[in-house]
Amino acid sequence: MTTDAETTVGSLRKTVAAFVDARDWQPFHTPKNLSMSIAIEAAELMERFQWLTTEEAQAAVDDAAERAAVTDELADVIIYCLSLSNALELDISSAVLGKLQNNEHRYPVNEFRGRFRRPEREKSDKT
Amino acid sequence: MTTDAETTVGSLRKTVAAFVDARDWQPFHTPKNLSMSIAIEAAELMERFQWLTTEEAQAAVDDAAERAAVTDELADVIIYCLSLSNALELDISSAVLGKLQNNEHRYPVNEFRGRFRRPEREKSDKT
Amino acid sequence: MTTDAETTVGSLRKTVAAFVDARDWQPFHTPKNLSMSIAIEAAELMERFQWLTTEEAQAAVDDAAERAAVTDELADVIIYCLSLSNALELDISSAVLGKLQNNEHRYPVNEFRGRFRRPEREKSDKT
Amino acid sequence: MTTDAETTVGSLRKTVAAFVDARDWQPFHTPKNLSMSIAIEAAELMERFQWLTTEEAQAAVDDAAERAAVTDELADVIIYCLSLSNALELDISSAVLGKLQNNEHRYPVNEFRGRFRRPEREKSDKT
Repeated sequence: MTTDAETTVGSLRKTVAAFVDARDWQPFHTPKNLSMSIAIEAAELMERFQWLTTEEAQAAVDDAAERAAVTDELADVIIYCLSLSNALELDISSAVLGKLQNNEHRYPVNEFRGRFRRPEREKSDKT
Repeated sequence: MTTDAETTVGSLRKTVAAFVDARDWQPFHTPKNLSMSIAIEAAELMERFQWLTTEEAQAAVDDAAERAAVTDELADVIIYCLSLSNALELDISSAVLGKLQNNEHRYPVNEFRGRFRRPEREKSDKT
Repeated sequence: MTTDAETTVGSLRKTVAAFVDARDWQPFHTPKNLSMSIAIEAAELMERFQWLTTEEAQAAVDDAAERAAVTDELADVIIYCLSLSNALELDISSAVLGKLQNNEHRYPVNEFRGRFRRPEREKSDKT
Repeated sequence: MTTDAETTVGSLRKTVAAFVDARDWQPFHTPKNLSMSIAIEAAELMERFQWLTTEEAQAAVDDAAERAAVTDELADVIIYCLSLSNALELDISSAVLGKLQNNEHRYPVNEFRGRFRRPEREKSDKT
């Protein structure tokens, strides 16, 4: 089966690698080109929501056709991320889990619950 | 262990979900904001290669410090992709494998080996 | 004076060109690098609004410090656009006015007033 | 005439404003949507060079059809920049000239001629 619960990141990387190799596309898969490709597909994903309000965007993804389009664009972004990890032999799982560990310290729960930036220091804190 | 060979996409999604939930960040994780975030991090990844030639870029990722920086930015892109899949309950593995299947037909090996676009039709094909 | 009412696009292009030339930066200003640079700066501009609701974003730009930050990022995007027009010797004014002319036909006022896509055809239109 | 030598930034802004106003598109032109739009069009511009080497990209823009496509995408980026300056009432010329002035100090010619980052300090500087 091919759901996220059963599929390893490694097996997705292998499927992408086989697709790229069968077409001899490795020469095109330079770090520069792949980083551009990730950004290009990220923009196509954004385009699904370009003129929608936040509420309209939430409603849109409940529509089957729109959901399929968003899924398609997200897949494109991820496929290029997998290609870059293959081209550079970067382990995605360690990278993601390592970054989340760092982020535990950069964004302590007690300071960042419900907010994305530290509150400005109260004047009283300076006494 | 946390390498791609042993880590399921689902376990990465769960770790990201726990991080977001602990901080009550779900209200910020709208489809619009997350698609912008993926694009923002994709640009930070591109920035590693902004002024480098293709050869300089390939050499850069052999340097440990630069490799760590690229890994960090790629992790950021992927973490937001995982957040979007959580927010929209999209199965990444089916999306990626489904898209690669479609791409098998859009980019047949015999037509696309070593090239990224179909060759222009020879004039003789029009007779 | 340096306001938009008195400043020609050409004079802005010349000022950017002088800045680039003084630093012998033309070899870095390839079409690929400049297109990446425009996208990188566009992402930094988006970052100002990343987690804000539409209303919060509108309010933010009324704050002097935030307005200055947005202005700074928009300037960066435009400076790279001017650099690309210099590198490729493209006339921006003709390009913009030509595209707006095409858009007059692609987005006729009577069909697109208050909307960004054509309404779906009513069934009665098919009789 | 409509070349950069004779066209003020202000006149381009007015033409864009008239186009947007005729279609009652101002409600869609929020800072968030416009910053997303600039990034979306920047990615379409990058797409022209996605798989080309630097040399192939330089050659491509000598082809009339490709040059027109690049011009079209650059125009789209700039049109959204002009829309954002209109929506926020930001003077582009002062922003650009001000940023270049700041950059004169951030990137002094004697340190940045022919390079985009400061050279690493020689060990001898630490004695």
